[in-house]
Amino acid sequence: MTDINHIEKKDLLYKGKAKEMFTTNDPDIMWVHYMDQVTAFNGKKKVQMAGKGQTNCEISALIFTDLAKHGIENHFIKQLDANNQLVKRVTIIPLETVVRNFASGSFEKRFAVKHLMKFEKPITEFYYKSDELDDPFINDFEVEALKIATEDQMNQIRAIALKVNDRLKEIFGKMNIDLVDFKVEIGIDKDGQLILADEISPDSCRLVDRDTQKSLDKDVFRKGLGALVPVYKEILGRLEKVEGVN
Amino acid sequence: MTDINHIEKKDLLYKGKAKEMFTTNDPDIMWVHYMDQVTAFNGKKKVQMAGKGQTNCEISALIFTDLAKHGIENHFIKQLDANNQLVKRVTIIPLETVVRNFASGSFEKRFAVKHLMKFEKPITEFYYKSDELDDPFINDFEVEALKIATEDQMNQIRAIALKVNDRLKEIFGKMNIDLVDFKVEIGIDKDGQLILADEISPDSCRLVDRDTQKSLDKDVFRKGLGALVPVYKEILGRLEKVEGVN
Repeated sequence: MTDINHIEKKDLLYKGKAKEMFTTNDPDIMWVHYMDQVTAFNGKKKVQMAGKGQTNCEISALIFTDLAKHGIENHFIKQLDANNQLVKRVTIIPLETVVRNFASGSFEKRFAVKHLMKFEKPITEFYYKSDELDDPFINDFEVEALKIATEDQMNQIRAIALKVNDRLKEIFGKMNIDLVDFKVEIGIDKDGQLILADEISPDSCRLVDRDTQKSLDKDVFRKGLGALVPVYKEILGRLEKVEGVN
Repeated sequence: MTDINHIEKKDLLYKGKAKEMFTTNDPDIMWVHYMDQVTAFNGKKKVQMAGKGQTNCEISALIFTDLAKHGIENHFIKQLDANNQLVKRVTIIPLETVVRNFASGSFEKRFAVKHLMKFEKPITEFYYKSDELDDPFINDFEVEALKIATEDQMNQIRAIALKVNDRLKEIFGKMNIDLVDFKVEIGIDKDGQLILADEISPDSCRLVDRDTQKSLDKDVFRKGLGALVPVYKEILGRLEKVEGVN
């Protein structure tokens, strides 16, 4: 294995909506660059925003480090500088796994239920990651039929997502924030193990302040509620004050 | 229990898109009238068609009778005349259960797969029965959260739907027809048991002739491919020739 302090960035492998992934001189390590860009509605709304990449990069680094300490294996290796991280190379399973504690977003719309109705226990949903298809909602039988994942993998993915939910609720609780919902992506590492990948940030979570009931996440951008970066910086600031996370 | 030969029609309890349900002088028995009406796209396309109700009424009676003989309990009691049946009164669980053997309809659109791609094993899907919400696709965790059905009920529903699929594939196979997909509805009878309800007809199945690859179901109406009633009569004619069903 290459010395972790001498990793060099090589080729751009993949450019997503908020991150660029580069290969490195170590085949098992990827270089992630968090861009100063925010998108919504499957990329239909897109804006450049100074400071956004850095804030998300730091939030995700803090959360992934904390989750690892709590027994949730993930791809995060180390933060390099403001906008750049090293992560383990994984093969992403093309499912977005959504965990919902309160009704919001597409769930609220689909079932016409009260905004922020609380669920007795968390709901999990799979969406098939496909820009062309607009990430369609998918059930277990369809996932199997389309050979996206096996039943065993789906159960493992849900178990990881629910463990993440338990710890995130604790962390955000200490920040006086309700975790409404979030999405995770799971990858297969070089040993064939399923681990948490991608990022966890206000781009991928819905967060509501318990006192003001205001959104502290990408809904601020989706709904045009004001400047986004100060909101993300507020999350980072509160996160850095949580004992054990900072 | 009232003498089955002296059931009287009482009040209209429910008017659906293709059937009217009346109470009778027996609280456990309902009177179903199959209307000469066909609708599609959640009622947005609607046409009156002489002979349609009668054909579906007869097809569904033959199929439900056959399914009962094959151990699949259902609500059908007896055919009264061309357009009318008696059925057991049940409380319908508001889920449409779809079983798919080949890709078509919303599945084909959602995942952009080849028309009539064959699945290795049947796919099941739940849709929440709600005209206002346009029958949204729903997963098990959402069904539970919204208290539509329990996990045990969902497993029972899927087991019934897959048993129906096995027998329907046999019947349609003998008619030189591929059963592409179909939907069923399940009700809870007075003893608390889950039984097959609603109807099974070319309104609720996608059927493709193995030689001509032509649709022999409501897709003829949805897609404006020609007169519908002769197609339904063709299904009834072939069904009446199947040994054991007639």
